[in-house]
Order: sequence, then C-alpha cells, then structure tokens
Amino acid sequence: MSRFKVIVAYDGTNYHGFQKQNNALTIQEVLEKAITSIVQQPIEIIGAGRTDTGVHAKGQCCVFDAKTNIPEENLIKAINSRLPKDIVVKNVQSVQENFHPRYSAKRKIYRYQILNSKTCDPFLYRYAYFYPHTLEISLMQEAAKYIIGEHDFKCFCSAGSSVQSTIRTVYSLDVNKHDELVCIEICGNGFLYNMVRIIAGTLIQVGIKKLSPKEIQNIIDGKDRKGSGPTAPPEGLTMMEVNYEDE
Amino acid sequence: MSRFKVIVAYDGTNYHGFQKQNNALTIQEVLEKAITSIVQQPIEIIGAGRTDTGVHAKGQCCVFDAKTNIPEENLIKAINSRLPKDIVVKNVQSVQENFHPRYSAKRKIYRYQILNSKTCDPFLYRYAYFYPHTLEISLMQEAAKYIIGEHDFKCFCSAGSSVQSTIRTVYSLDVNKHDELVCIEICGNGFLYNMVRIIAGTLIQVGIKKLSPKEIQNIIDGKDRKGSGPTAPPEGLTMMEVNYEDE
Repeated sequence: MSRFKVIVAYDGTNYHGFQKQNNALTIQEVLEKAITSIVQQPIEIIGAGRTDTGVHAKGQCCVFDAKTNIPEENLIKAINSRLPKDIVVKNVQSVQENFHPRYSAKRKIYRYQILNSKTCDPFLYRYAYFYPHTLEISLMQEAAKYIIGEHDFKCFCSAGSSVQSTIRTVYSLDVNKHDELVCIEICGNGFLYNMVRIIAGTLIQVGIKKLSPKEIQNIIDGKDRKGSGPTAPPEGLTMMEVNYEDE
Repeated sequence: MSRFKVIVAYDGTNYHGFQKQNNALTIQEVLEKAITSIVQQPIEIIGAGRTDTGVHAKGQCCVFDAKTNIPEENLIKAINSRLPKDIVVKNVQSVQENFHPRYSAKRKIYRYQILNSKTCDPFLYRYAYFYPHTLEISLMQEAAKYIIGEHDFKCFCSAGSSVQSTIRTVYSLDVNKHDELVCIEICGNGFLYNMVRIIAGTLIQVGIKKLSPKEIQNIIDGKDRKGSGPTAPPEGLTMMEVNYEDE
C-alpha cells in the first residue's frame, strides 16, 4: 500500500463543493470514482481544503492510498481520461505514509478575483465576481496591511463554525488591478470558514469608501462577524497552492 | 430610424456560430431577440464576421436599425439584462446610415490559442486547443513571416467556399508563448473561410517539425488546400477586434 499525493485543478461552477455529500455532485466523489476505476480498488480521498460550492482550485492537494504498480506519469493520463474536462489531475507522486494534506500543510494561497468593469465578461463571469462600481485600489491596499500578521480572525469567520481557535497568521495579502480585473491574493498558515471571501467582501467595502482602511483594525479587535463586510460570492475564489515545506 | 453599432463579446461554446439558422441556437438569434425586446420593434442584425460553431469573440461588431430614444448607456444595460451570461454587449453607439460592419471594415484581428501542456486546464479547455506535443515556437515564428503580406491565400481556404477572390493582405502574424499558452495573433484586411484555423493548423505542423518554415512559401504558391495543414479546432479561435479607421 502506498500513499499518493495528487494535485488537482478544477472549475467548481458545476459542483457542490469539494467534500462528498449525499444527493449532490462533488469534486471528491468524481475524483474517487475516476481513481477507483484506474487502480481497481476502492480508494478514499483526503483534500487539503474543503472548497465550497462554486469555488475553484488550481492546486488543490489530495492524497489516496492504493496498491498499484502503474507508473506515476501513466496514472496522471489514465485518471484524466476518466475525468470530466472541468476537473484535471496535474500531478501524482508517491509520498510518505504520514503525509497528510491538511495537517502537513504549512501555507495556503488563495486568490479572489473581482471583475471591476461596466459590463460583465463572457469569459470571466464564472471566475470573477462582477462588481461594476468604482473601487479605490490604493485604499484596499492600505486596508490589507492591517490584516497581515498573526491575529484572532474571529471577525472574518462565518457564524456556525466550530473551530477551537480562530487565531491564524496571514503572511501576505496583495491587492492588484490589471486592466479590469482586481486580484486579491492571500497567503496564510490556514483559513477559517469563509475567511477569504469575508476579507474580500470587507476590502470591497473599503474600496467603495464605506469603510476606511483604519477601521479594519477595529473590526479585527472587535472579534465579531457583524463588524466585517459581506461574504463575497464563491465564483471569485480560487485555491491556488498548498505548501508543505518550511521556508 | 437610426443605425446602431454594437460591440459584442461571446463565449461561442454553446452556440452554432454567429449566423442565424433554422433549428440551431445562434448568437445572432439570441442578440436579435434581446434587442427586439428592448427597442420594442423587430430588428435585424448584421455582423462583421460569421464566426463558426464554438468560435468566440471579444469584439464582434454588429449593426441594427431602430427608432428609439433610449440613451446608448441605458441600451447597453437593458440589452445585457436580457442576454445570457455568455453573450455580453460591450458598447452601443449610433453611427451613420451607410456604416456597414463588413464592407466598412479595414482590418480584423483574430487570436488562436493553443494550450501546450502535458495536462489540460479546466479553465482554458473552452478557449484554447489542447495540444500536448512539444512545439518549437521559433520555427512557427519563422514560418509566420512567409504569410505576412498580400498573397493569394487559396491554400488556406476551406473547399466549398465561393468567394470571388482569394487574395488577402495579412498585416501582421505574431506567435508568442506565455507559460503554457501559445498565442497566434493575426491582423488582415479580411479572411477566407477557415483561413485563421488552417493557418494555425499549418503553423502547428511547423512547430512539430513536420513542415519546415520555408515550405510555407511553396504551400502558398501551390494555391491548393491539400498542401496546407489541418484546420485547427474552433475552441482556440477568438475574433478580437474589427477596425474601421484608415491608419
């Protein structure tokens, strides 16, 4: 029995999130069926992050355990031949048995895209939040600085989450605009439920001047979900990368 | 009665091309229905180019004639509110009655995208031709030089086309690679049926060394469709822009 690490990219538009559910199609279910049919034994997948309905991934990291002699290059091709076009296995690699995609993760990178134009875009509406009102990017960049660092991020955690600690470290948070696409990229040691989407929604409030950058500090100190902005919609969010090495 | 120039972007994946047909959904039909419902009179659309099934546009140019007092900014919003998300009107502007999107056009720009990677991409498979074999970009760039200029392009015209002249001028033809995406961008005074896709297919033959760059000259001189490469698939093609000004 070997453990395999799988890097997966997917367009989450047509799926009810990553994690398996009764009566709803999920990324995990589709992946498990494809891999099972190739390695010809029942396998179960563990993912690094349980992306929500409509959220995408470029570098979701999963593992499965199986007994197989199929070389890794061939595994990639074979699994992809059984997957729909909106889910693609980018890499398969055998790893040590104690490697765990969630517990071994050191850093995760998410990207939130906002299409900030007068009219929507037929090529981007699935992958960016269409927001036609003017956004002051420099204010959003200033606000982002308050979020970087180790903080209790309870204010950016959806109610109903049952995590033990709401303390996380954000290593970087960049806001950039290229043409009409605003890109919020965040790197941290872990994220609370809906944290990136609430941060995006809060930065948008700053961008339209409903909040000042300085107020972010009060929002964090307040430790209350009610103080922060709305949860930005899922289509803008992509899980970019999970890192496992200490830097 | 005024003539309106409309710039339209669309993801052609789910349409049977631009031009209206019986028993198949087309861009023209969807646009005409949306505009008719807004200006509340039957209108007919003329487009600058009849893109094929699965071909996309970022700057298709159309006109329609209507009697309406709706300001142009409001027309854009109103029409878009009646369109599906994969068709977006980017601009509406009143023009002179003698403006014709095809006959008045001076230059058209098309882009052909090739995803040249080992595995496909869930975000690009609709917008790029997935071609996993190694492409020698410098050879494709060398081959492109033979295509630039005024030539009889009969070799790059699909059989069955009934145009009077197969002479066209290609002003520029650039081949570039960014990460795993090969981008072929071509500007000309007009294009024969399937011309850009056949040029793309022929450049790919050069990229895999089945043709040498110099052979392009013989292919053009031969004036025979059989001499050139296969027609590259539609998903890679996007109509980028139509220019109406003399430069």
